[in-house]
Amino acid sequence: MTGKVHQCYKNSKKCYLISVPLKCNLPSKLVKEIRSYHSVVQLIKEAVVDNNGPLKNTTWTELANFVDDYGSRLAGTKNLENAIDFLLKRLKSAKLDNVHGEEATVPRWVRGHESATLIAPRRKQLSMLGLGNSVGTPKKGITAFVVVVSSFEELKKKASEVSGKIVVFNENYISYGETVPYRSRSAAEASKYGAVATLIRSVGPFSLNTPHTGQQDYGDAKPIPTACITIEDAEMLQRLYNRGKILKIHLRMNAHLEEPAISRNVVAEISGRTEPEKVVLVSGHIDSWDVGQGAMDDGGGAFISWKSLEVLRHLGLRPRRTIRAVLWTAEEEGYFGAQSYLKAHQNEIDNLNAVIESDEGTFTPTGLMFHGTKRAACIMQEIVKQLKPFNATILEVSKDPVDSDIELFQNKGVPGISLRNDNERYFWFHHTQADTMTVEDPLALDLGTAVFSAVTFILADISAELPKASKMYYM
Amino acid sequence: MTGKVHQCYKNSKKCYLISVPLKCNLPSKLVKEIRSYHSVVQLIKEAVVDNNGPLKNTTWTELANFVDDYGSRLAGTKNLENAIDFLLKRLKSAKLDNVHGEEATVPRWVRGHESATLIAPRRKQLSMLGLGNSVGTPKKGITAFVVVVSSFEELKKKASEVSGKIVVFNENYISYGETVPYRSRSAAEASKYGAVATLIRSVGPFSLNTPHTGQQDYGDAKPIPTACITIEDAEMLQRLYNRGKILKIHLRMNAHLEEPAISRNVVAEISGRTEPEKVVLVSGHIDSWDVGQGAMDDGGGAFISWKSLEVLRHLGLRPRRTIRAVLWTAEEEGYFGAQSYLKAHQNEIDNLNAVIESDEGTFTPTGLMFHGTKRAACIMQEIVKQLKPFNATILEVSKDPVDSDIELFQNKGVPGISLRNDNERYFWFHHTQADTMTVEDPLALDLGTAVFSAVTFILADISAELPKASKMYYM
Repeated sequence: MTGKVHQCYKNSKKCYLISVPLKCNLPSKLVKEIRSYHSVVQLIKEAVVDNNGPLKNTTWTELANFVDDYGSRLAGTKNLENAIDFLLKRLKSAKLDNVHGEEATVPRWVRGHESATLIAPRRKQLSMLGLGNSVGTPKKGITAFVVVVSSFEELKKKASEVSGKIVVFNENYISYGETVPYRSRSAAEASKYGAVATLIRSVGPFSLNTPHTGQQDYGDAKPIPTACITIEDAEMLQRLYNRGKILKIHLRMNAHLEEPAISRNVVAEISGRTEPEKVVLVSGHIDSWDVGQGAMDDGGGAFISWKSLEVLRHLGLRPRRTIRAVLWTAEEEGYFGAQSYLKAHQNEIDNLNAVIESDEGTFTPTGLMFHGTKRAACIMQEIVKQLKPFNATILEVSKDPVDSDIELFQNKGVPGISLRNDNERYFWFHHTQADTMTVEDPLALDLGTAVFSAVTFILADISAELPKASKMYYM
Repeated sequence: MTGKVHQCYKNSKKCYLISVPLKCNLPSKLVKEIRSYHSVVQLIKEAVVDNNGPLKNTTWTELANFVDDYGSRLAGTKNLENAIDFLLKRLKSAKLDNVHGEEATVPRWVRGHESATLIAPRRKQLSMLGLGNSVGTPKKGITAFVVVVSSFEELKKKASEVSGKIVVFNENYISYGETVPYRSRSAAEASKYGAVATLIRSVGPFSLNTPHTGQQDYGDAKPIPTACITIEDAEMLQRLYNRGKILKIHLRMNAHLEEPAISRNVVAEISGRTEPEKVVLVSGHIDSWDVGQGAMDDGGGAFISWKSLEVLRHLGLRPRRTIRAVLWTAEEEGYFGAQSYLKAHQNEIDNLNAVIESDEGTFTPTGLMFHGTKRAACIMQEIVKQLKPFNATILEVSKDPVDSDIELFQNKGVPGISLRNDNERYFWFHHTQADTMTVEDPLALDLGTAVFSAVTFILADISAELPKASKMYYM
């Protein structure tokens, strides 16, 4: 998952919830129709969630095999393309329709060797990860004195001290949405004042000496090397600095950008029975950062998305309209796969009924997050009631687009849906070496697959399409 | 903290609790006397815990300065001795009595450079830490096929497959006490069957790709290199192995033992008013593993111990008998400092009233753990009632010796006391790079210091000494 996030329970400034239940006035015929999908939901449950269900545990097992075999999947790497080849084969073996890759040009950032060493007042290796899109240091590294600040405001106040120094940002973690600007913009801000590099306290609420990488953007500023360090080391540097100790750090990074590469979004469908040109899109992203296994961000989301199509195929269910799974490439560097897709498919936006994504964790599902018009939210509210067998009946309605890649489509008025799940610890693992299968739970993944199977089928099959918002009118 | 632990709430097999409150029949005069210390406890609270108390926050601040300046403090290093020199000076500046170091011969294990790389079925760096006392590999490392087992029983069953291989132990974590044998003995057990090295799943309940080091013992077996890997990687290797993949690992460790070194236990006292030869000993250990800052294990324990003497000195309180703070050296390798101390002071055991230690965390105190006779437990039960101002009134009575270094003295009948605290997450940080000041909380440390100040003073001052157990009779 890239920069923008909606973790409302963490007081993100970017997320505004409308209290539910909404007061709705849906035609009783429509309500009745939605309730009639009860039997489909039951079939899905029997296949995926119940003991001895033929597809039970398969999402976890297939995801484990996949991330164990391919590991992390950074945009621009041959490894990501191998993983995509594997998945295309796998989707064909599931006998899905129209399985293919759609090319997208993606950045190719290479981390290379990297290290940060405190050399005064005493020698200590600092656990670190270079930030995406960072430039490297000269070959021999940079050795510089250090200024520690805890905010952009403090940086401004200390502007005159910064030239020629490494700036350490020891910002406090509030929520991801509110704190992540320190990752995205610290280099740009400090570079303006002549800093030679920045080291950011990792953006996360809890650490076991855990660095968290992620994308950053220089804007118009002169590029300087930038990396994250751990909460523990940032706090220690702050304490030493506050005591008046002279801090010196040696930073070495071979990070660099190579020529852009060609990657692919992975597409597979269950073609619609009567209106195949109309599409409900369900998605996750297939790329990851180059740490851990990319199991949580976003292996889990990608797998529950395509597995939901396999479930429906297994049950022989073909809806009125088309369900299209898209596994986006190069999400982490800024929705590159989704941008390419939008460009190639811009004439089909009117036929896009809904965009669904899971890129905020595949822990135990609790319901759905939704962005769209009130009438659409009312329909969704009736649909989530059908998720009772999965104990996932909460609908949260957001004034802002939900989830990541699918923002682009919501900005054009398409209703957006995201998996709501017990992701309180999401940012403990996010963009770290700890993003592995150990985070994922078989039952939670079964429930995620089941929820997406049910929601995509109902949305693609009911007589009423979700109304779109005009570009001018949101909620 | 070394091998043996009493974490009863985690179902350790090594800890048996007697339900409290005990049925006691203390003389009412003694009960009254204990209750009279209420005013001393109040003075301690005002100095250490209350806002504007002159010693408030000083345990945290001094511990932070100490571990920031010296970092980790492995036995045998010059750095540990520098840290000890600093502390001796600091204790003298606190105007404590009889401040001195007492020499102890300690092992000098050197980690050196180390790495473990999965090279088949795909290349992946494994986060690892060599285990204490491990031998190294040849300079070029060892490359070998891998057998994964989840228990000693499975190792036995696979004995014929192990020769020439690296054995990975992916044991399940039950409790520290029950699981730590996989750290201490895996190399010895696998070596018997011809294994060339062992890699142990780190002993801990939760991981963010966190390796946990610790001591291990070859016994009579041929030494082979041994290290820990993370829970995440151990699980991944298990999954790959179960799928029939051929695993190959390249292990490089420069670990070796150098000649034993001379270190020191740090001693400081408040000499007794009327019976100075009688001693209440309060302690923590000053050494740590060579990772993180040794702030939790056992900087916090060492600091609340000596700070409790500073508090009493500050208040001008001198008890009937002597309070002696001892900061043990080389606990981690097997109580080397405590063993030397016992040898040098064996004639004084009869005068040792009680041994107190904090080596299981300095999170918010909840009371005390106790090991001794029933009558002694009854006295302690009355004493913990006096800790109400610190909300630390739980007494847990253990059939086994409590805490670490002080085991040696409890085995000779001396009553043992350990700080009971909210240490549910202790083993998340234990022996890892995450054992830093970030774990420690100023108020929790103030409360720990206050509890130890009150308990040591009462024990050293009441008319009745805690009765000892005969060597044959415990509880």
